[in-house]
Amino acid sequence: MNERIAGTEIEQLIQLLARLPGLGPRSARRAVLHLIKKKEGLMMPLAAAMQRAVDAVTVCAECGNVDTRSPCSICTDPRRKDNPMLIVVEDVADLWALERAGIGPVRYHVLGGVLSPLDGVGPDDLSIDRLIARAPQFSEIVLAVNATVEGQTTAHYITDKLEHSGIRITRLAHGVPVGGELDYLDEGTLAQAMKARTSL
Amino acid sequence: MNERIAGTEIEQLIQLLARLPGLGPRSARRAVLHLIKKKEGLMMPLAAAMQRAVDAVTVCAECGNVDTRSPCSICTDPRRKDNPMLIVVEDVADLWALERAGIGPVRYHVLGGVLSPLDGVGPDDLSIDRLIARAPQFSEIVLAVNATVEGQTTAHYITDKLEHSGIRITRLAHGVPVGGELDYLDEGTLAQAMKARTSL
Repeated sequence: MNERIAGTEIEQLIQLLARLPGLGPRSARRAVLHLIKKKEGLMMPLAAAMQRAVDAVTVCAECGNVDTRSPCSICTDPRRKDNPMLIVVEDVADLWALERAGIGPVRYHVLGGVLSPLDGVGPDDLSIDRLIARAPQFSEIVLAVNATVEGQTTAHYITDKLEHSGIRITRLAHGVPVGGELDYLDEGTLAQAMKARTSL
Repeated sequence: MNERIAGTEIEQLIQLLARLPGLGPRSARRAVLHLIKKKEGLMMPLAAAMQRAVDAVTVCAECGNVDTRSPCSICTDPRRKDNPMLIVVEDVADLWALERAGIGPVRYHVLGGVLSPLDGVGPDDLSIDRLIARAPQFSEIVLAVNATVEGQTTAHYITDKLEHSGIRITRLAHGVPVGGELDYLDEGTLAQAMKARTSL
């Protein structure tokens, strides 16, 4: 749209919102009109909330979760401190999905991706060294990676690294659809998959 | 999601984003993770752009358009000043849709809705008095309201009000699908409908 029509500030807001996943140029325009109509009730709180999040958000040095402090709320949660189970996920979205599934007071380790030689992602690009360093604190490590080729390759790589550690390495039960991604699953399926996890 | 998990600031941002049209709780979570990953490149500019829009946005006292000044860029555009054609729309989204269709250097009047007795919307809730006051400046008024029952009722009401004004009152050509809304139409259809407008 032409800048003459609606003002540079509005146009910039549309262009930036259109870059969010799930929004395109048209839905971004609708979102901005909605924001303008609800300026006091939605646009002002959202602008303030986004600035507060910009200022506050940090990545947990311990586990890789995003939070407003490091170590994060999960790593410092007293209910989780004595649980000897560590859940390894690819991404923070997967951590959030497992938390929504209510799998219990566990701790997590966010890899930040999966091994993918075609995309040039090797072990050094992921938080695998940090995982190996944390591992001795735990008696069981659940590799809750996606059921994709890259996810399973990553699981095998980590299993090999921890082979002689004496730590029980498990994976989520089948029940996760092959090729599917955790973040899209319903909570019931995720909880079942957690319950029926098997040894590698 | 529990506030303990991701920090109040992140949780608030998710809840506010989920109130945008086209985003639900799940897509708002994905959007927030995307924002956190692109903190410098997207989240910070978006927070700033939203605050700038909050500060700048205003409603044009002349036509009801949203802009960063009043009278708005369209009302003050010298190319439009001498054009005796006024386009009446329900909503700013419709104005933007017509501008995208490139219908020429026209001026607009935003009604702010349509007559809808069932929803308690009467003539005093819309910008109809202001339209009648502006009308004598124009020789043609195009009632570009949606092709819904309420839209057509509103068009008839305005036509009655302007019956003895000597102003030519037109409506968009058929070509707009019955029951459809302007903002969802492709630009070609809108331009055609504008070209083939008929007298009421």
